[in-house]
Amino acid sequence: MFILKTDDPVPLYKQLYNQIRACILSGKLPSEYKLPSVRELAAELSASRNTVDGAYQELFAEGYIYSKPRSGYFVSALDQRALRLSVSPQSRKKESRSEPSLYYCRYDFHPAQLDRGSFPAVLWRKCFIEVLRERARDLSGYPEPQGELHFRRLVRNYLERSRGVICSPEQIVITAGLQNSLDIVAQLLKGSHSAIAVENPGFFLPRSVFGSHMYKVIPVPVTREGIDQERLRSSDGTIAYVTPSHQMPMGCVMPVANRLKLIEWAAKNDNFIIEDDYDSELRYQCKPIPSLQGLHPDGNIFYIGTFSKILSPALRVSYLVLPHSVLTKYGTHFRGHSARVSLLEQLTLAKFMELGHWDRHVRRMRTLYHKKHDALLKAIGLHFGDRAVVVGQGAGLHILLQLPGLDLKESELIERAGRNGICLNPFERTIAGGKPDSTYMILGFGGMAAGEIEQGIALLSRIC
Amino acid sequence: MFILKTDDPVPLYKQLYNQIRACILSGKLPSEYKLPSVRELAAELSASRNTVDGAYQELFAEGYIYSKPRSGYFVSALDQRALRLSVSPQSRKKESRSEPSLYYCRYDFHPAQLDRGSFPAVLWRKCFIEVLRERARDLSGYPEPQGELHFRRLVRNYLERSRGVICSPEQIVITAGLQNSLDIVAQLLKGSHSAIAVENPGFFLPRSVFGSHMYKVIPVPVTREGIDQERLRSSDGTIAYVTPSHQMPMGCVMPVANRLKLIEWAAKNDNFIIEDDYDSELRYQCKPIPSLQGLHPDGNIFYIGTFSKILSPALRVSYLVLPHSVLTKYGTHFRGHSARVSLLEQLTLAKFMELGHWDRHVRRMRTLYHKKHDALLKAIGLHFGDRAVVVGQGAGLHILLQLPGLDLKESELIERAGRNGICLNPFERTIAGGKPDSTYMILGFGGMAAGEIEQGIALLSRIC
Repeated sequence: MFILKTDDPVPLYKQLYNQIRACILSGKLPSEYKLPSVRELAAELSASRNTVDGAYQELFAEGYIYSKPRSGYFVSALDQRALRLSVSPQSRKKESRSEPSLYYCRYDFHPAQLDRGSFPAVLWRKCFIEVLRERARDLSGYPEPQGELHFRRLVRNYLERSRGVICSPEQIVITAGLQNSLDIVAQLLKGSHSAIAVENPGFFLPRSVFGSHMYKVIPVPVTREGIDQERLRSSDGTIAYVTPSHQMPMGCVMPVANRLKLIEWAAKNDNFIIEDDYDSELRYQCKPIPSLQGLHPDGNIFYIGTFSKILSPALRVSYLVLPHSVLTKYGTHFRGHSARVSLLEQLTLAKFMELGHWDRHVRRMRTLYHKKHDALLKAIGLHFGDRAVVVGQGAGLHILLQLPGLDLKESELIERAGRNGICLNPFERTIAGGKPDSTYMILGFGGMAAGEIEQGIALLSRIC
Repeated sequence: MFILKTDDPVPLYKQLYNQIRACILSGKLPSEYKLPSVRELAAELSASRNTVDGAYQELFAEGYIYSKPRSGYFVSALDQRALRLSVSPQSRKKESRSEPSLYYCRYDFHPAQLDRGSFPAVLWRKCFIEVLRERARDLSGYPEPQGELHFRRLVRNYLERSRGVICSPEQIVITAGLQNSLDIVAQLLKGSHSAIAVENPGFFLPRSVFGSHMYKVIPVPVTREGIDQERLRSSDGTIAYVTPSHQMPMGCVMPVANRLKLIEWAAKNDNFIIEDDYDSELRYQCKPIPSLQGLHPDGNIFYIGTFSKILSPALRVSYLVLPHSVLTKYGTHFRGHSARVSLLEQLTLAKFMELGHWDRHVRRMRTLYHKKHDALLKAIGLHFGDRAVVVGQGAGLHILLQLPGLDLKESELIERAGRNGICLNPFERTIAGGKPDSTYMILGFGGMAAGEIEQGIALLSRIC
C-alpha cells in the first residue's frame, strides 16, 4: 500500500504522511477507516516505529485522523469536496505525483537489505558490556584519529587471512562507511589528480563524492571481465575506481590478467587504483577471490572494505587501506582531525573479532545467503524460463535479471511492480549517462525469506 | 617521563615506542631496568593499554627489551656504543629531535579532556541493552541518512529548551563531530561562496576543513566582543565562522548588539553564519546565553553543537542545524548518502535523553566543572598573584592565562613545562598567521582533580 524510499531526500515519516494524507484526500481511505497500529504498519513497511508514529502524529495534529482510547487511529469524517478545494493546487499536484507510488512494499528486492534476524545481538551485547566495563574511563578523551590500533591490528590480520591484503595497521583508517572512505581518498589525491575513471554501469556514490570534490568523472564501460582496459587507457583518468571481485551491478569478476594490466597502468603512470571490495566475503560457488591489492602491496592502491554487508549497515563501520605513497600526506592533511567511529563500537567489534565471533558469523551468513541466492535462481528458472537471462550470479547479495524480450520503460516496470507490492531498485541509477542495452532488474535477495523470494518472483513473472 | 600527542599523525603506540627506544639508546633507561607494567604505564599516561602494549611488543620484537615470566619487561643489556653506530644518522636525527619531549605528563591541561570518572556507564549500558532488545531487527537495513527522526526530535526539543534554537527536525543532521559538520557546510556552500571569515585567534579545524575545500580562509581579529565586525565587513568573506557564546580560545561572549549586527550583515548580503556552540552548556556565573540562531531562525545561520563536551568525545555524536535556505540543496546533494552515526548509538542517546538522564547529567557536569574552574582560578591567584591575567573565565573547560611579564618563546615554555611533567597545549595553534601580543597559556581543567589542578599551577608558577 505504501512505499518508503530510503534514498529519497524527504524524511521517511514525511513520505508516509504524504501518502496516507493523499489516500485520505482521494477517498481511498474512507472516513471511520481504522488505521493499522503503529507496530503493525511499521512491521509491514519494515520501517521503524518512529517513522509510522511520526506520520500518525502529524496527521492527528492536522485533524486527518482521530484516536479512540485503547482502539487506535481512525480516519476523520471530512467533507471530501471542501477538502479538495482547501488543498492548494501546488500540494494537489504533489499528491497526484505521489499517487502512483501509494503501494505497500511486500517483496523488497533492495540489494543492500540484510537478513532481518541475523544480527548477533546476544554476542554483541556481551562484547559491548565487557568493553564498557573495561574502558569507561577512556571515554573522557578523544580516541585515536585513525581508529584504535588494537582494532586496526585485527582488521589487518583478517584482511591478510581472508583477502590476501598485505598492509600494516598504520595504513588502515577506520571510517564511517564507503562515502567517508571515498571522501578521504578524494581529499588526498586532490591537487595531484583531477579525473577519475569509474565503472559504467557502476555504483553511483563514487561519481557523487568525487564530483562534489570537483573531479572530472569519466564513465568507462564494463565488459565481461570488468572495466574496459583499452577505454581506460585512452581516457584521461588518472584514478580508477573498480570493484574487481564482484562488479557492482553486473557481478562479473576481473580476471587476474586484467588485474595485472590495471596494476601496470597505475605503476607506469603513477596513477591510482581504488579497489572497492564491498561484499567480497560472499562467494557461493568457489572461494573468495584474493584482493587486487595483494598482487601489488607497494602499489598505488586504495583498498576499501566494510562491515555493512555481513554484520550491519546500521553500525556504520568500514575501513580504508592507504597505499604507502600517501601516508605522509594523510598524516599532515588530517592532522588534528578526530576519529570517525565511536570508540565503544570499535572496541566492541574488536572484541567480537578477538573471540572468533566474526569468523563464525561470516561463515554463517555465507551459508544463509547461499540458500537465498539458490532459491532466487530456482524461482527465476521456474517462472521466467528462457524469457530471462541471469547476469552475475554466484556472489554478493544481488543478481541482475535481463529481460531481452521486454519492451518496457524502467520507470513503468518499477511502477507496475510497485502496484503489485514488489519493490524494485532502478538499474538506470547505476548508469552514468546513456541508456541500458536492454531491460535489467537488480534483484537483491538478502532481506527476504526463501519462501517470499519464490512468491515475489512468481508474481513478478506474471506482470512482465 | 613520556608525552603522547593525540593530534600527532604518528600513532600513539609508535610515539611511545620511539620515546622509550630513544631512552634506551641514550642510556636514560639503563639495561636490566624494569619497565612499568602495561596497566601501570597506561594509567600514568592516561593512554589505552593497547597503546602501551603495542609499544612494548615492538620493542620486544626488536630486542630492546626482554621479558621475564611473571615479572614483566626489562631493558636488554646492549653495547651502547655499538648501538649508537647501528642507528642510521636519519633515525638518530629523529631521536634527538624527539629527545626534548621525553617527559611523563603528570598535569594535563588539555582543553578537551573531560573528567575521567564522569561517563554515566551504568545508565548508558541500561539504555543500550534496551535499545538492542527493541531494535535488533532494524540493524539489517540502512538507518535514516540525516539521523533517526525520533532522536532529531529530542535534539530539537533540547536545543529549543536550553539554547533557544528554533528549528524543525527536518533541519537537523546528526554528524560524527565538528569536522563532519563543517565538511557538510563547506560542500553545501561550495560554488555559491568561496571565502570564509574565521575568528583569529580561533579554533584551527574550520581553517583546515574549508581550506581543504579550496575556500579562501580570511582570519578576522577577535575583540573583547567577539569577531571584529568592521574588519569582517571590509573583508571579502561571505561566510563567517563564529563561537558567540564562548569564543575559542579567548572566552569572550558576543553581546546581543554584535549578534544583531552579524545577523544583519548576513541578511543584507545573503551571506552565511556558522554558529559553533561547542560548550554552551557550561556557564558558571550566569545562565547559558541563548543562541544566535534563536534571534533569527529564518536567517542563513548554520547552528553547530556536540555531545563531546558534556558526555564524551569518544562517542563521536554531534549535530548540525541547517538553515531553511539550504534544505533543498542538502536533499539533492546528499541524496543517497548514508547515516554518519551508528543507529545503536543514536537510539541509546535518544533513550538516555527521553528518560531525563541527559538533563541530569548536564546539571551534574556543570557543578563538577564549576568546582574545578574555581579551584583553577584560586590556585592561579594564590601562586601567580598579579604576574598573570586570567582571560575568558566563567565558562567551558578552559581559561586563558596571560603572562605579560614573561619573555619566553611558547615552544620554550611548553618544553620547560613538559620537563616538569606539565602538558600545555600551544596557544599559537589557534592563530592563523602572526604572533600573539604576549605569552598566553590555554589551561584546560576538565581532566584533573581539584587537588591536581592546585599542584600543577603551583609547579607551573615556579617555572615561569
